[in-house]
Amino acid sequence: MHSKLPHIGTTIFTVMSKLAEDEGAINLSQGFPGFGADSELLELVGKYTLKGYNQYPPMAGILGLRLKLAEKTQLTQGYFPDPEREVTIVSGATEALFAAASAVVRKGDEVIVLEPAYDSYEPAITLNGGKPIYVPLNEQDFSPDWERIKKAITDKTRAIFVNSPHNPSGYVWTKSDLDELAQVIRGREIFVISDEVYEHITFDGKKHHSIGYHPELREKTFVCGSFGKTFHVTGWKIGYCIAPPEMTTEFRKIHQYLTFTTVTPMQYALAEYLEKPDRYLSIPDFYQKKRDLFNSGLSQTDFQFRSSAGSFFQLVNYGHLSKMPDRELATRMTKELKVACIPVSVFYSDKKDNQVLRFCFAKEESELLEALDRLKDLN
Amino acid sequence: MHSKLPHIGTTIFTVMSKLAEDEGAINLSQGFPGFGADSELLELVGKYTLKGYNQYPPMAGILGLRLKLAEKTQLTQGYFPDPEREVTIVSGATEALFAAASAVVRKGDEVIVLEPAYDSYEPAITLNGGKPIYVPLNEQDFSPDWERIKKAITDKTRAIFVNSPHNPSGYVWTKSDLDELAQVIRGREIFVISDEVYEHITFDGKKHHSIGYHPELREKTFVCGSFGKTFHVTGWKIGYCIAPPEMTTEFRKIHQYLTFTTVTPMQYALAEYLEKPDRYLSIPDFYQKKRDLFNSGLSQTDFQFRSSAGSFFQLVNYGHLSKMPDRELATRMTKELKVACIPVSVFYSDKKDNQVLRFCFAKEESELLEALDRLKDLN
Ligand SMILES: CSCCC(=O)C(=O)O
Ligand SMILES: CSCCC(=O)C(=O)O
Repeated sequence: MHSKLPHIGTTIFTVMSKLAEDEGAINLSQGFPGFGADSELLELVGKYTLKGYNQYPPMAGILGLRLKLAEKTQLTQGYFPDPEREVTIVSGATEALFAAASAVVRKGDEVIVLEPAYDSYEPAITLNGGKPIYVPLNEQDFSPDWERIKKAITDKTRAIFVNSPHNPSGYVWTKSDLDELAQVIRGREIFVISDEVYEHITFDGKKHHSIGYHPELREKTFVCGSFGKTFHVTGWKIGYCIAPPEMTTEFRKIHQYLTFTTVTPMQYALAEYLEKPDRYLSIPDFYQKKRDLFNSGLSQTDFQFRSSAGSFFQLVNYGHLSKMPDRELATRMTKELKVACIPVSVFYSDKKDNQVLRFCFAKEESELLEALDRLKDLN
Repeated sequence: MHSKLPHIGTTIFTVMSKLAEDEGAINLSQGFPGFGADSELLELVGKYTLKGYNQYPPMAGILGLRLKLAEKTQLTQGYFPDPEREVTIVSGATEALFAAASAVVRKGDEVIVLEPAYDSYEPAITLNGGKPIYVPLNEQDFSPDWERIKKAITDKTRAIFVNSPHNPSGYVWTKSDLDELAQVIRGREIFVISDEVYEHITFDGKKHHSIGYHPELREKTFVCGSFGKTFHVTGWKIGYCIAPPEMTTEFRKIHQYLTFTTVTPMQYALAEYLEKPDRYLSIPDFYQKKRDLFNSGLSQTDFQFRSSAGSFFQLVNYGHLSKMPDRELATRMTKELKVACIPVSVFYSDKKDNQVLRFCFAKEESELLEALDRLKDLN
């Protein structure tokens, strides 16, 4: 049978989580929290389910949740998107990214992807007939390399995927990165598909600047976010897309035929939960404690690293210790040390191996400490 | 801004539901139940949410639910699909239909669509670069017109969408329809995308014959179904796709990047609920009572109809009463009689108006009786 995606297997996140399970290893690979969500939020799901909120919600999501999201955006980004015409609730950020690509990418279009990159961008481009143009981020700190981005832009460039806070590196785009991007695409019809699922996870007082509310980028950007990542419920599969009205119209046409709507009782639960706006404000602190704990342990190991500035991931280098391919090392660590992580070569189109591993520190303290203890045995 | 779907507006289902709400009309338009689901099922959602089943499930769905679905298929269709390699849980049948199309349809491929047809098939084809080839069903009873289907097949035919029990007509494919289809596509690589969301809603002892378990069609068919439709929880957005291993592999590659996974606690709730296999067996009776009640009332009106054999829809003809366009009549009935329905012209690519309306009778008895009372005032 002909395959539309011949090069695609099971994602590394599934592969490593499965291996971790089979090996009884601590799973610091796939990005999901190893602790429960706020029970106040969880209780609301049962409440709305029993109350009978189980039929199709409106196609764009329930207005209550769209409104709360708009208010949150006002609070954190100083911009109030129109809940009716600019906000859409979808079945996870993965759907948001796919639908945004599908709304704008046509046969033969080029789409810029900054590497290392999350693995769903490429199929979202190619399934829509587009061609990904890969541009490496700066090797040192994973900031955008503007000279290379400029060179990659052609008359066929239709869109650019950006991701801040960045998975896997944690790099958080600065205001001047936003200005640079605005300048680079000025005067061209190039859309920005902005993956901001870690928007609330930044450290050391660093602020997340959403690409979608930069005065000039706003009109070109699909902001894709995730309630699941933010509130420790990745299995609820509720994400969103915020974009200007005309772009939202095209986005919704696609969403309407991809999934049509998104699980109703969870939408009501989140809308009620967000009546207290401070729900978001404690998240950076919560994760910073975990990052600090994890990294202070890491500095007792032989890994080299620079502390993640955002997301719940930490990269480490091991090239000075071993020339083993990262996939092999990750597999061996899972089997022998019983700690699973992600080999970062999978985030590169050419599987470039810089001998870097990614750990997810969204886990209970005790689990992180146990993992660190095991990592000391690495040699 | 360039639109990938210039001809697409908001679906008629959203439009009519909104109008019904604005007008305070009884909503017999969009297909969703007007009554609650089994409280036993609903309570399980709260239970699993609180128990902490809120992170990503496996990409293909939790194995427990896949197994229950396989057992159900054994029970109702006499075939046990492999839960590991042939069953995938997705975010609603809409996603299943889209992902199946996406897995097989390539640029320039032709895909046969039997009209009247559900509105998501066409974008699922065109967004993947394919061309829908419309073939009308027999006007009399909405059975397939094999002569026309044969004529429509060319070397470019890549797939055919079929739908039984049929929305909007209720026609249920017979065993001989299945044999005909097998014969018509024999020896060609033509995939069948089978929309069977009303699989459990058939009347007068008629049996649903899934296209996916016909001995010859099995190896070519994606069976797309919906737990939401079956258990009165359309807002949970849980559907499935059953297909042979090689086709499932391609299907999952797409699903992996469309939504990745589907809401976790609902999957556990359904899996536990289905430990009693008789959950499915009472559904035909339950809906037959509603159909009979509704149709006995309808026969007091001036509409003409033949009783629906499956699904929760009933078509009526009004051409002998009025030459008003169906969309206009549906709008007026919503505003004046306060009963909303769907104008069937929207199910045709050329918006052919045969002066037919569709009513959804998945409503409480009292609501159906009130609607019927109002319909008597039609003239
Ligand atoms: C969608 S599964 C992967 C979760 C994630 O974002 C990651 O691990 O990078
Ligand atoms: C997905 S909304 C429409 C529900 C439905 O299947 C119908 O009304 O035909």
